[in-house]
Amino acid sequence: MENTTLKDYVIGLDMGGTNSIFGIVDARGTIKAQTAIKTTAYPDVKDYVKAAVEALGPAIDVVGGIEHIKGMGIGAPNGNYYTGNIEYAANLVWEGVVPIARLFEEALGVPVRVTNDANAAAMGEMTYGVARGMKNFIMITLGTGVGSGIVVDGKIVYGSDGFAGELGHLVIDHTSNGRKCGCGRSGCLETYCSATGVARTAREMLASSTEPSPLREIKPEEITSYDVFKAAEQGDATAIGIFEYTGRLLGRSCADFCTFNTPEAFVFFGGLTKAGDFLMNPLRKAYDEHVLSIYKGKAKLLVSALNGSEAAVLGASALGWEE
Amino acid sequence: MENTTLKDYVIGLDMGGTNSIFGIVDARGTIKAQTAIKTTAYPDVKDYVKAAVEALGPAIDVVGGIEHIKGMGIGAPNGNYYTGNIEYAANLVWEGVVPIARLFEEALGVPVRVTNDANAAAMGEMTYGVARGMKNFIMITLGTGVGSGIVVDGKIVYGSDGFAGELGHLVIDHTSNGRKCGCGRSGCLETYCSATGVARTAREMLASSTEPSPLREIKPEEITSYDVFKAAEQGDATAIGIFEYTGRLLGRSCADFCTFNTPEAFVFFGGLTKAGDFLMNPLRKAYDEHVLSIYKGKAKLLVSALNGSEAAVLGASALGWEE
Repeated sequence: MENTTLKDYVIGLDMGGTNSIFGIVDARGTIKAQTAIKTTAYPDVKDYVKAAVEALGPAIDVVGGIEHIKGMGIGAPNGNYYTGNIEYAANLVWEGVVPIARLFEEALGVPVRVTNDANAAAMGEMTYGVARGMKNFIMITLGTGVGSGIVVDGKIVYGSDGFAGELGHLVIDHTSNGRKCGCGRSGCLETYCSATGVARTAREMLASSTEPSPLREIKPEEITSYDVFKAAEQGDATAIGIFEYTGRLLGRSCADFCTFNTPEAFVFFGGLTKAGDFLMNPLRKAYDEHVLSIYKGKAKLLVSALNGSEAAVLGASALGWEE
Repeated sequence: MENTTLKDYVIGLDMGGTNSIFGIVDARGTIKAQTAIKTTAYPDVKDYVKAAVEALGPAIDVVGGIEHIKGMGIGAPNGNYYTGNIEYAANLVWEGVVPIARLFEEALGVPVRVTNDANAAAMGEMTYGVARGMKNFIMITLGTGVGSGIVVDGKIVYGSDGFAGELGHLVIDHTSNGRKCGCGRSGCLETYCSATGVARTAREMLASSTEPSPLREIKPEEITSYDVFKAAEQGDATAIGIFEYTGRLLGRSCADFCTFNTPEAFVFFGGLTKAGDFLMNPLRKAYDEHVLSIYKGKAKLLVSALNGSEAAVLGASALGWEE
């Protein structure tokens, strides 16, 4: 009686370089069952998919079997929505082009969609989060790097090649002082406004002053954005200044991004958002100062309200509802 | 027999601050009839619409009457696609919000769509020009200012408010050296890469060197981008350097724009494109140098092939085919 089966659940896979986390998710964004495998443990992707399907078995049983699953969404590094492939992902054990969607479709018998983690996060916010009901917004993920997912008319912008929405690599400092980026160029947004960018700013600011700061007790190369946050919480002026610098640059950049699709909102997600007002106050201030007058007051600057540890799985799962 | 009438034509209106040019256009982009009125001659927009409809009469008769017209498209300053209004256009005689689409719909009895001139240009390229068949591209208009029309999945990006796609006001110099812009801010792309930006660059370059140049025979404040082009054609190193500077900045900016929607092409239109290779060679070079490696070689950098004097009317008319 396939026709009368309610396909009320989707599978979300948050694929990281180290771990792969799977969730069975309902339409409200509740994770009904969860499981995980080590991504690194399977040098052959076919073994990975086999292990994943085995691990998923009991989780799928929780919701009554695969006939209750509408589809699967995967958030993966360099995931290409158009092809369903992971293409040349530097942080994964598999080299070259990996037809991950096809492999899971063959193994599970349900439609599978793939995209990168920032686009998955945008889908998650649109489906279950603060962007519900929004048709035009920009997701900014602030982790080790800066990712983005751009939504126009209710759809993720994948561009001509499936790799659109890389605002972390928009160059915000074109002078010769621009920070070297992992992409081989200089001055990219993510060299300033990621967790690693914050640590870099901390090292620069500590080196260029003699102001006392608890951050001086940490070896410069070991300072993390979390250390900066803890110091800011203690009222350390240097740490507060680091977030001000970061927030200002991010706010100014978002003002520039407005010229593309005048979003209803920017949604910020990821470790750095834990800095709260230390980051968001200067961000909002810089945004208001820099945005073109016709756009003033139009976009909300929001922080994701999704549970951090669940958000990536939820985001990936949101792709499973398509079609 | 309304049902059997072939609605094979659309009306395009290119509304400028001074003149309004109307064309009756077929599906191939041939202008079958043309007419014009002075925009400035009608302080009341109702009189303007009345005069326009009168002027259009004989042109519409050329194609067999209004029953052969599918719709009308208007390219107007601050034209808002969503509302059909012109909103607070500084260069027009009418103040505030003008319901231009509704007024023409009532007068002509056909659907009317409005947008700004850069979006209209993008529609024109997609419908009749070098972007035919493209689903993702960015139109850049290089006139007195720099306008843009962004196409994602075959549709113009209007954004949350109808005013998306203002890449001319993306700030490309965030330092204190950024050029003052008419928008009240500093460092906007259009202060460098418009016709007026080229004239500004010319004045700066001439003031900062003693190199002989035919441009020195013109009063600095009277130099135009056309003068610079003529000098470049004569082999003047300063003039060639001015276009190199302009092209490099524009190419670098387009490399940044790639991160939004990885377009299949950038299409350049407007007076400055007459500079040809003086502009386009450094533009292409800078684009290749600056674009993120995953985007390298993907986007074409094209110059509009539409007849300059007809392009604005064609672009506007393209909106008339919608629905």
